[in-house]
Amino acid sequence: MPDQPDDWRRVVVSRVRPEVEAGRFPIKRVVGESVEVVADVFLDGHDVLRAVLLHRPLGASRWSEVALEPQGNDRWQASFVVGSIGRHEYTVEAWVDDLASWRSGVLRKVEAGESVEIDLQVGADLLRERGEAAESRDREALRFAAGVLGDADSDLQERLALLRDPVLRAQLDRNPDRRRAERYARTLQIVVDPPLARCSAWYEFFPRSTGPGNRHGTFRDAVAMLDYVADAGFDIVYLPPIHPIGRSHRKGPNNTLEAGPDDPGSPWAIGAAEGGHKSVHPELGTLQDFDAFVSSADESGLEVALDIALQCSPDHPYVHEHPEWFRKRPDGSIQYAENPPKKYQDICPFDFECDSRAALWDELASIFEFWCERGIRVFRVDNPHTKPFAFWEWCIARVKALYPATIFLSEAFTRPKVMYRLAKLGFSQSYTYFSWRRHRQELVDYMEELTRTEVAEFFRPNFWPTTPDILPDDLWGAGRGAFVTRLVLAALLSANYGIYGPAFELLDNTGRPGSGEHLDNEKYQIKDWDLDRQDSLRPTMRKLNRIRREHPALQRNDTLRFHDCDNPSLLCFSKEDPESGDVVLVVVNLDYHHRHSGWIDLDPETIGVDETESYQVHDLLGHERFSWCGRRNYVELDPQVMPAHVFLIRRFVRREQDFDYFA
Amino acid sequence: MPDQPDDWRRVVVSRVRPEVEAGRFPIKRVVGESVEVVADVFLDGHDVLRAVLLHRPLGASRWSEVALEPQGNDRWQASFVVGSIGRHEYTVEAWVDDLASWRSGVLRKVEAGESVEIDLQVGADLLRERGEAAESRDREALRFAAGVLGDADSDLQERLALLRDPVLRAQLDRNPDRRRAERYARTLQIVVDPPLARCSAWYEFFPRSTGPGNRHGTFRDAVAMLDYVADAGFDIVYLPPIHPIGRSHRKGPNNTLEAGPDDPGSPWAIGAAEGGHKSVHPELGTLQDFDAFVSSADESGLEVALDIALQCSPDHPYVHEHPEWFRKRPDGSIQYAENPPKKYQDICPFDFECDSRAALWDELASIFEFWCERGIRVFRVDNPHTKPFAFWEWCIARVKALYPATIFLSEAFTRPKVMYRLAKLGFSQSYTYFSWRRHRQELVDYMEELTRTEVAEFFRPNFWPTTPDILPDDLWGAGRGAFVTRLVLAALLSANYGIYGPAFELLDNTGRPGSGEHLDNEKYQIKDWDLDRQDSLRPTMRKLNRIRREHPALQRNDTLRFHDCDNPSLLCFSKEDPESGDVVLVVVNLDYHHRHSGWIDLDPETIGVDETESYQVHDLLGHERFSWCGRRNYVELDPQVMPAHVFLIRRFVRREQDFDYFA
Repeated sequence: MPDQPDDWRRVVVSRVRPEVEAGRFPIKRVVGESVEVVADVFLDGHDVLRAVLLHRPLGASRWSEVALEPQGNDRWQASFVVGSIGRHEYTVEAWVDDLASWRSGVLRKVEAGESVEIDLQVGADLLRERGEAAESRDREALRFAAGVLGDADSDLQERLALLRDPVLRAQLDRNPDRRRAERYARTLQIVVDPPLARCSAWYEFFPRSTGPGNRHGTFRDAVAMLDYVADAGFDIVYLPPIHPIGRSHRKGPNNTLEAGPDDPGSPWAIGAAEGGHKSVHPELGTLQDFDAFVSSADESGLEVALDIALQCSPDHPYVHEHPEWFRKRPDGSIQYAENPPKKYQDICPFDFECDSRAALWDELASIFEFWCERGIRVFRVDNPHTKPFAFWEWCIARVKALYPATIFLSEAFTRPKVMYRLAKLGFSQSYTYFSWRRHRQELVDYMEELTRTEVAEFFRPNFWPTTPDILPDDLWGAGRGAFVTRLVLAALLSANYGIYGPAFELLDNTGRPGSGEHLDNEKYQIKDWDLDRQDSLRPTMRKLNRIRREHPALQRNDTLRFHDCDNPSLLCFSKEDPESGDVVLVVVNLDYHHRHSGWIDLDPETIGVDETESYQVHDLLGHERFSWCGRRNYVELDPQVMPAHVFLIRRFVRREQDFDYFA
Repeated sequence: MPDQPDDWRRVVVSRVRPEVEAGRFPIKRVVGESVEVVADVFLDGHDVLRAVLLHRPLGASRWSEVALEPQGNDRWQASFVVGSIGRHEYTVEAWVDDLASWRSGVLRKVEAGESVEIDLQVGADLLRERGEAAESRDREALRFAAGVLGDADSDLQERLALLRDPVLRAQLDRNPDRRRAERYARTLQIVVDPPLARCSAWYEFFPRSTGPGNRHGTFRDAVAMLDYVADAGFDIVYLPPIHPIGRSHRKGPNNTLEAGPDDPGSPWAIGAAEGGHKSVHPELGTLQDFDAFVSSADESGLEVALDIALQCSPDHPYVHEHPEWFRKRPDGSIQYAENPPKKYQDICPFDFECDSRAALWDELASIFEFWCERGIRVFRVDNPHTKPFAFWEWCIARVKALYPATIFLSEAFTRPKVMYRLAKLGFSQSYTYFSWRRHRQELVDYMEELTRTEVAEFFRPNFWPTTPDILPDDLWGAGRGAFVTRLVLAALLSANYGIYGPAFELLDNTGRPGSGEHLDNEKYQIKDWDLDRQDSLRPTMRKLNRIRREHPALQRNDTLRFHDCDNPSLLCFSKEDPESGDVVLVVVNLDYHHRHSGWIDLDPETIGVDETESYQVHDLLGHERFSWCGRRNYVELDPQVMPAHVFLIRRFVRREQDFDYFA
């Protein structure tokens, strides 16, 4: 037989959103972004409710409060802006306002011409009680009001006037009776990141390919690339692993098993006699050279992202110094990576469950901290989905406790739930399936999942048309139009995107049969890129990155809307920044080979034009201007010329008499 | 800086469904029903997972287990049947099967022609370790198998044969290594009710209207109604409150403020000198008469439902004996019910928050127990939404701890979230908005909400076309067709439904202007019904109740499916009982006044017919048979004749050679 509850509340606070897995994981925001919170708040009967959203930086002693407003159907809403990087928390509290309930009843009786004498006595008692508990500055005033209200000999109109007195109301609002307030069952968290976590353009290149001819490039050579990358408008230069490369089982060109004596090997086979994850490859230079590279990047306004792959070549010092961190085979050898029947003999995975895991985990986390100490704030993490979730949750929290502005990009090309789990437990951004989403419905469905569902609260997509591991089928042998199409989609659908260059802008379209990647892949050999080629996409990248920087609408994903078009080869979408009023409208021809035309049907609310309005659209990419009218308009795009329009809408605003001019 | 987690698991178990508000509330089932559970289960990397659904009656010491099966995309599924009334619980557990992971790798290597000698040593070690921890009957066999597997001198084929040996596999399945198993974060509960909670036909009548002429009817008179109700196929007779009726501020006919000396008053004004909630109204008879009535009902196969309204007339003994249970006004009088400017001076609400609440709550719960002790197992609870949620959660749990098969029907005509909250915290069934849902889209939307969303897990709708409080506008002055339409919809859309009789079957269609209820309402006066009227809907009620009893498809809501029809006045739906194969197809003309025809477009999968198949439909209501073909078929319904078809589908099944006959 259940005991009577001793701590019950009449008010219910439930379904506070956003909330990820019943509060198990935080939501994500960047500093300055707002958090819109909704909750179901209600109680038995008809009394008046008050509800507040409580929020504070984690560890702060006092809550900030924002009143929640009822939206109908017992749904309440409020929002607040997160003002600092780090963890914050929020929850909802609500209570019955007995005086407001009483007041609304009395006013209705007065309106109906009923006697309210006894009600005024009731109110006087409530007011007196509230006065006793009030702040000292309000105590006297509340006592006095109670006296007037309860004095049957005073003028009735004067007493009733108190019910509408704004000063008394403010005094009461300052002194709510929250003794029986109900707090939501859970306190929810927010990870607040720097703005770069929400909007960033990445440029990946291999520093060893920056030397003259086929000479192994160095950090000093790579400095020259920084101007190129900054001039093209990127925010982040991302380098594949820069550590000493193992020699045992080194891979040759095109992933062949036997490397020649001059083959440089894969940078992901980390560790050699010269050092491991906290050292740099001698052929790239010294740690000091690396520091100088980072300083130059900083001067160019670029962040440097390092690639951390938690795995070892058999030559890594860890393998010899800490054999207990690896799995041993019955013949005494260290277990190499396998996905039977495939063998990766150049890679030894750590045994995250080994008996010495405490020391192992500490050492691995210290790798990130080592590079943070040298000024690195962005990490691209290789294959996190093959390491335990618990490790990442702990490791990212540890690094962010020291360096809260650190950004982690998850390279987890795996099943959706695993990908999302990694985002929930701490990764700031993630690679996606974008590289293989080509057709309109595929793109629309994927974007809706990423931006219109709970996923948007914890998962920040980063779109890459290609990577050193990925040359999608549709780009094999494809022409310039195809590359521009994928570039425009990546840069404008997602606020975070990245380019693997110079292969991308130089239209490297040759795949290695049997693999999903480039022939003569830069992972296994040094490339000599001709950056000044006439057909380079560099000017288009520069233009797109400038458009992204100038248009806050493109720096977010939450306002993405798709618009209908009668030709399924044309994708039409818009993004909006309500704060600034910025709206950008994009139309992309998804067919790399043929000119397509069609009628797009704009959602007038999103675009802000009405059915019969005439206006101008200005293509920021092609610099053309078109006169449009209402919601249905004609577009035509030739992939040989330019497969996309990026439109600004210039409305004629009619003011006062008959002047027409641009808004 | 966060500490390293010491109790982490590689496996993730998340999003176990059904789950109501993160497990705060139980789901509902009736005994014999199955619970289908899904969960997201996954881990890092590619190892083989096992997962089990754990379930047991609450308080049992041992879990029952069912293996979850992967459904793709990391979703796993299993189900179990709840075998006893009361609370049950369930959760999910999953772990890495190291031997199965190893086995799948070795088999792939063997297929690729690779050497597996070292792998067999690894497997032998794993097998040996598993043998040490195994049940004694398997220990020796596992040790032996480990020996064979690890013996490099044995025949390789013989060793490999072990990998496919079903006996060894069964031994391993019996002895899983679950030391690092992950249990879902929450254990979820199920309230298991008797079958009547899921499917019931209610008949409400006022016993005081069962006397001859206008003489006050008694329980003895009411016994005669039991045959009438049972013959019409109902399951439950529901009586408005049977307690002594107060005299102070007694309401007269049509809710007038002054009752004449012979006016019987509203049965909801509970309590007088003769007693309160544990007494019966003297004019109805004695408690012994009531007991005799309940026995007669039992003999007729009927459950008796009592109406419990937790409120008092000013004459209730509680008011005098326990003034501390009520709110006092400053003039010393007891506060009556108000919804300003409306006053309900004949009703004093309890103060659930009073200082003596422990005694008050105990007394109120004891009212239900008092009637349970007299054999009552069904309660209709008046206005539960004006009493604290915490009271109901505790009270229902307390009553069910003693009488687990008790059914509570919530009469909460209020906002949806409050209605649903009451269901979550314990009410078995609830009144709904059905009475005001008339048009096709309204009905479809409402049914989808009730049957296709999370609501279906905790809320069991009970559909009432009318009640003593409700005569919907569209039935004011309406004819027989309208009443039949509403009857069919209530009885066939919802497995629980109820009729307020004899007003309903006698087509009482006169509203009192300014109210939403009947003129000369039985709440305030005794009625003399002519049960034998020729135009009574009794035969139609009897027919519908028989159809409901004969067709398990109609005894559930979860398989409801709507089918398209080109005429928006026609509603077409089906219900199915997969266990028995029963399918019922219903078409209703929603226009009370005009004949409508149209083409319905059946979902072939639901109905089980293919595009070109010929079959017969048999109307259980009108007894007609029609020959139909494929998915699109013509229907025509005249509300003056019969506004609905209730079809059985009789398929011609071709067996052996060329015989055609009915399935």
